[in-house]
Amino acid sequence: MFITFLSDFGLQDEYVGSCHGVIKQIAPEVQVIDITHGIAPQAVLRGALVLANTLSYMPVGVHLAVVDPGVGSQRRALAIRAREGRLFVGPDNGLLLPATDQAGGVDAVHELANSDFALASVSRTFHGRDLFAPAAAHLARGVPIQSLGPPVDPGALVHVEVPAPSVAPTLIRATVLDIDRFGNIQLNLNRGHLLEQGITPGTQVEVEHLGERYYAVAARTFADARAGDLILYEDSYRWISIAISAGNAGELFAVAPGQELCIHPPGP
Amino acid sequence: MFITFLSDFGLQDEYVGSCHGVIKQIAPEVQVIDITHGIAPQAVLRGALVLANTLSYMPVGVHLAVVDPGVGSQRRALAIRAREGRLFVGPDNGLLLPATDQAGGVDAVHELANSDFALASVSRTFHGRDLFAPAAAHLARGVPIQSLGPPVDPGALVHVEVPAPSVAPTLIRATVLDIDRFGNIQLNLNRGHLLEQGITPGTQVEVEHLGERYYAVAARTFADARAGDLILYEDSYRWISIAISAGNAGELFAVAPGQELCIHPPGP
Amino acid sequence: MFITFLSDFGLQDEYVGSCHGVIKQIAPEVQVIDITHGIAPQAVLRGALVLANTLSYMPVGVHLAVVDPGVGSQRRALAIRAREGRLFVGPDNGLLLPATDQAGGVDAVHELANSDFALASVSRTFHGRDLFAPAAAHLARGVPIQSLGPPVDPGALVHVEVPAPSVAPTLIRATVLDIDRFGNIQLNLNRGHLLEQGITPGTQVEVEHLGERYYAVAARTFADARAGDLILYEDSYRWISIAISAGNAGELFAVAPGQELCIHPPGP
Repeated sequence: MFITFLSDFGLQDEYVGSCHGVIKQIAPEVQVIDITHGIAPQAVLRGALVLANTLSYMPVGVHLAVVDPGVGSQRRALAIRAREGRLFVGPDNGLLLPATDQAGGVDAVHELANSDFALASVSRTFHGRDLFAPAAAHLARGVPIQSLGPPVDPGALVHVEVPAPSVAPTLIRATVLDIDRFGNIQLNLNRGHLLEQGITPGTQVEVEHLGERYYAVAARTFADARAGDLILYEDSYRWISIAISAGNAGELFAVAPGQELCIHPPGP
Repeated sequence: MFITFLSDFGLQDEYVGSCHGVIKQIAPEVQVIDITHGIAPQAVLRGALVLANTLSYMPVGVHLAVVDPGVGSQRRALAIRAREGRLFVGPDNGLLLPATDQAGGVDAVHELANSDFALASVSRTFHGRDLFAPAAAHLARGVPIQSLGPPVDPGALVHVEVPAPSVAPTLIRATVLDIDRFGNIQLNLNRGHLLEQGITPGTQVEVEHLGERYYAVAARTFADARAGDLILYEDSYRWISIAISAGNAGELFAVAPGQELCIHPPGP
Repeated sequence: MFITFLSDFGLQDEYVGSCHGVIKQIAPEVQVIDITHGIAPQAVLRGALVLANTLSYMPVGVHLAVVDPGVGSQRRALAIRAREGRLFVGPDNGLLLPATDQAGGVDAVHELANSDFALASVSRTFHGRDLFAPAAAHLARGVPIQSLGPPVDPGALVHVEVPAPSVAPTLIRATVLDIDRFGNIQLNLNRGHLLEQGITPGTQVEVEHLGERYYAVAARTFADARAGDLILYEDSYRWISIAISAGNAGELFAVAPGQELCIHPPGP
């Protein structure tokens, strides 16, 4: 049985290790796959997108996710069963829902209210260790989801939304979703948005951020451009991204997640 | 069988991976739980505290810890059996003792002197890989601790001490133990120190560092304060910490571990 | 069965986690050992050296390595069997060859051309997840290497070379291979290069970078020097390195991998 684990805990501190220890105390034979713990602190939308993006690459199991700015407040703690059988554990702040949608949508939701499946003492600030990790471990051992607590109306769950881009013939206003280690800038655009404006591989466009404008070319992959060239491409999760072949686009634009970046399609 | 592993090796280099490889060559079926490798370089006290803080969340097994500024010197290499059965492996510099205390205190100590349980060639600078990881792996396979080398007098072990705070009615002088990824500042104070000065949830205090003073409120959790408010709270390891609700207190105070931070209780 | 995994993916993003997920979907019982994912982005030579340096500490298995600036281009994707039985999977850019040499040299090479052993959809930018990880997982399950694709002439493989130092009686010009977390500076020198110029433990030399010169002493280990002293020593992979006892040499010299650093032997 597998538990996948995604969080914003980072690896500098002992938070991830503590959760692993708790899981292994409860379910020694379960295998834990760390998706990433590098989600920016409290970036719920980013966590939700990464969980959804990576889901099809993960074995079926329990998918534990903790990006939880509301820890200690009245926000609910959840276990969700998706129609295709995958189980999700995490806070009720939208983090789990895009991935649940990928897995066929919500089949059942229960609140983590049964203290038999939490640690004996639940701190007010670290529910990852004290509440979510134990629940995931018990589910992985075969505890039925309905044992964890009362059902929750799926219609009452908190959602997060990817901001919509503004796409017009002379200007595409996009939002930066992420900048990865290689400086690749992921945008809230898909191939359809570019096609609408006639942008296909080989089309030259201009990319603008805070008044700085650069030429870029739509391409299929890094190797289609010369070193140093800016490219627009569909990344491996099917989002449109901006990269510099053999360079770092994130540094060039000095851009951060959540900021706007504009694409100027070629004139008619 | 489990080996937990804590170090100051970081994850940028291959040091942690090399130790994992050595363990798996000797004990392929052992499961390794990485507590953290983000202890600041050579910060023995911090390593000792994290090992002790996390111990109760770890399955019983062999607890390997390497923060070892004295590698290559005459400092001893140790295996310790605690009264409750847990085994600890690491350098004789105090790193293992707070956790051993958590596990019932020292039952037996042996020096890692038997080369049958080290790699064939032990380098002068990387005992984690060549000496400590192999010893932990052999212990996990069931080698008796006394086979590793001669007994050591527990009274002769090196200790590290948490610095004591100065607690007076008008001023609490504390030392910063840690700043985590979220900017939460852990102090060498517990709830008793605050209660002595009449500070309970809801009490307003002032926090001072290098002449900068800010209001803060004693709280149970982040959600008890408005976004941007400074709070004093008991963290999930029962140390008093300072946080900013939805912010980063470490950046506000520009404080580092080992520095002093003062708390001014309210006047009478 | 073991898969070791080395890359330049870092741990901030979900790239490593996605590869783990893919491996576990194909080969749930395989154990994955992460050597490191902290190779500098696209630093093929560094990746090749770390893979070779750590190989003897890893259990025999499949050794997956991905540092792949040419992803999406015509560079080949390879599986290599070494004479001593270890298997290597990665791009044909030199990354795998120093480690293959450590394992007895090339016995057979096959191109990853059989889509039965890749994911159903192979992206143009993330062959680690879509091509290399699946191939490694299938090999670990026992798929014969020749099933993965046609044989490749070992003489046609791309190589990377460690730059050669210039060693003369009055001056040794070395290249920095790496600076680790502790600030230790690894050079492209071995003990023989120092012995040629009469440098043995205890010899005082001068170390120069960009005009800044400092005294250093050849030593066996950190403990042979006083805190703050610069030392030249043979590191645990048998490269000559520069360190400051209880300090950070990388910060002192503000040096980066690939830069030159000079050693002035003592006069006659």
